Amino acid sequence: MKIENIELFYLSMPEILDEADGSQDALIAKVEGGGFIGWGECEASPLTSIANFICPKSHSAAKPIKDSVLGADLNNLADVKKIIHNVKQNSLMIAQTPHTFSGIEVAILDLLSKKNQSPIYEIIGHKNSNPKIAYASVLFGNTPDETLKKASDMRLKNFKAVKFGWQNFGTDLNNDKDHLIAAREGLENDLMLMVDAGAVWGNNVSEALKRVEILKEANVTWLEEPFYSDAFDEYSQLNKISSLPLAGGESCHSVESAKNMIKYGNVKFIQIDAGIAGGILAGKDIAKFAEENDVQYVNHTFTSHLQLSASLQSYAGSLKSKLAEYPMQLKSLAWDITKNHIIIDKDGYINIPSDIGHGMIINEDALFKYKVDVEIKVNQKKIF
Amino acid sequence: MKIENIELFYLSMPEILDEADGSQDALIAKVEGGGFIGWGECEASPLTSIANFICPKSHSAAKPIKDSVLGADLNNLADVKKIIHNVKQNSLMIAQTPHTFSGIEVAILDLLSKKNQSPIYEIIGHKNSNPKIAYASVLFGNTPDETLKKASDMRLKNFKAVKFGWQNFGTDLNNDKDHLIAAREGLENDLMLMVDAGAVWGNNVSEALKRVEILKEANVTWLEEPFYSDAFDEYSQLNKISSLPLAGGESCHSVESAKNMIKYGNVKFIQIDAGIAGGILAGKDIAKFAEENDVQYVNHTFTSHLQLSASLQSYAGSLKSKLAEYPMQLKSLAWDITKNHIIIDKDGYINIPSDIGHGMIINEDALFKYKVDVEIKVNQKKIF
Repeated sequence: MKIENIELFYLSMPEILDEADGSQDALIAKVEGGGFIGWGECEASPLTSIANFICPKSHSAAKPIKDSVLGADLNNLADVKKIIHNVKQNSLMIAQTPHTFSGIEVAILDLLSKKNQSPIYEIIGHKNSNPKIAYASVLFGNTPDETLKKASDMRLKNFKAVKFGWQNFGTDLNNDKDHLIAAREGLENDLMLMVDAGAVWGNNVSEALKRVEILKEANVTWLEEPFYSDAFDEYSQLNKISSLPLAGGESCHSVESAKNMIKYGNVKFIQIDAGIAGGILAGKDIAKFAEENDVQYVNHTFTSHLQLSASLQSYAGSLKSKLAEYPMQLKSLAWDITKNHIIIDKDGYINIPSDIGHGMIINEDALFKYKVDVEIKVNQKKIF
Repeated sequence: MKIENIELFYLSMPEILDEADGSQDALIAKVEGGGFIGWGECEASPLTSIANFICPKSHSAAKPIKDSVLGADLNNLADVKKIIHNVKQNSLMIAQTPHTFSGIEVAILDLLSKKNQSPIYEIIGHKNSNPKIAYASVLFGNTPDETLKKASDMRLKNFKAVKFGWQNFGTDLNNDKDHLIAAREGLENDLMLMVDAGAVWGNNVSEALKRVEILKEANVTWLEEPFYSDAFDEYSQLNKISSLPLAGGESCHSVESAKNMIKYGNVKFIQIDAGIAGGILAGKDIAKFAEENDVQYVNHTFTSHLQLSASLQSYAGSLKSKLAEYPMQLKSLAWDITKNHIIIDKDGYINIPSDIGHGMIINEDALFKYKVDVEIKVNQKKIF
């Protein structure tokens, strides 16, 4: 079959709050061919990605993504890889390309899987899927008491691991300590605790080093994103001095950049977003490289369950990479995008859907309920 | 003063050819404040960058660039650094941001320099500027004879160094050899010859190794972009096995990514585009790090003389970094953007303009002659 049609849906909450919550808007890709429909979700800034998809050509390596996808053959995995290669050749000099294309790649694999009547993870080479330990991804509370309450709530919801992120973490040592003590208290001794610093220390290794003791006392499984995503040397220094296990990689926009994060940043957990890194196949290549280097692969997901399922496909069959990020503070938009959801079981595990494609059923009502109308004209001609 | 107004001008040749020539369109930024006007040029895909500039907010780290720039104080270099910091905090989760902001940063520094009545290089801390050896940047001919002719033409134009790039280089060993012999013959023994492979070998080190002998026989000063820009390990392997001096970095979109290219890719020449890496100040930080590591800093420029001057400011005062890329195959659009041009002298050197700002006078007629009209509506409201 051929890719006959591609549509992009820009969705948004009525109000976007000034918080680090990527579930407030979404760009959904719908890809059609051979009577089937595939769905995927792209990363942030829907308008920028729409422009990237349909922009006039600048030169031979800065073409609209649409040109490499629409009308392409799609009968097997080799065809998907050919599309990926063409996008890289034709559009990589536009910096937005990995963000825009990642969601389209997910939709393309979903479409191919529907034709083949199998889950995506089978199409890409996993014999089966293995359940993952879900870690609840939440923000620190405004006070240590709130953090403690969030921790106990997650425990009550059967989670075996909880990650706390951002808010003001990293800016006041005593406050950081109080929140870490509260989080550990709420989780009691047996649950895993992860901490996401959201790049708060930039390039400043010494600020990070000040927190090593309190992080170790709280027995954290990892410290995530202490520095800017490209600051490999700083990651590596912190790891060597402190022996604290580090996690990072959510901004990796290519297989190569993720490999660099592993090789030079010495992370022990590489966190890949299928909507950013290039798609599900990029994730699979990264997972292989990670595990060969004794690094665990983990999905990065802070948006819909469509994206959650997509991000899990890359390492569905892995036994070495055991953890999965499970977003727990979604805005209604992100929850409403799918009719079905991935639910944690009583032991704190999630199962990757074994249905056809990524297994998530799109709620088309939500596409209209949250829809943002976009019109783009170039020289008076409507191109979107 | 404050930044009171920002305008973006999308310019294009009437027809965009399917060649790797970034001078076929342009996005020009005009920034106004205190009665002065500053000008800069952003990297490829004008429509994508325009969307990035004015897009609705997605979350606290994915805001339109406009929000961090318009209305900002601009009285000294610290104010510029504050704007850069804010853009990084507010917009870095949109992948396009470095491309879009780089040209705006150039315009901001031009504006500040006009207020201070000094060249940009003085504002950023260079006491003076030193002439650079211009290398002519051209494409290989379609035949070895054409390559030979181009080489002798550049010699007649007083160049002391010439770089040949892409076309079909790297795909046929015998053909590559013929072109290299022709290039060296045309340049005679005394001129420097550089070769730009345009990432033709992707991740394939052995394809590159096959060319080491013929490159050494042609006595190349460097081999540029043998691999994908993030393939640091491959760069490093090639350099270690062959001891061939490598050059790269045109895709570096941050200070950190350029440092990584130097540290892990072992390049001997780091090529930075002021319209991609984050602007002139990012370039200055990269130049400092490069020279501390015995690496020469070189501008990357394949577009207008506005961008050429901007890219030279970062290392204007350096005595260690002696070379400058000088584009020789510009489309009329790129040439017409400025009224004045940087001209090589009889010894093959170029002087960085010592006039106020970046020293280039914008040809406002060209802004209208080549203008592309763009209209963007979001929920029926015109936002551009």
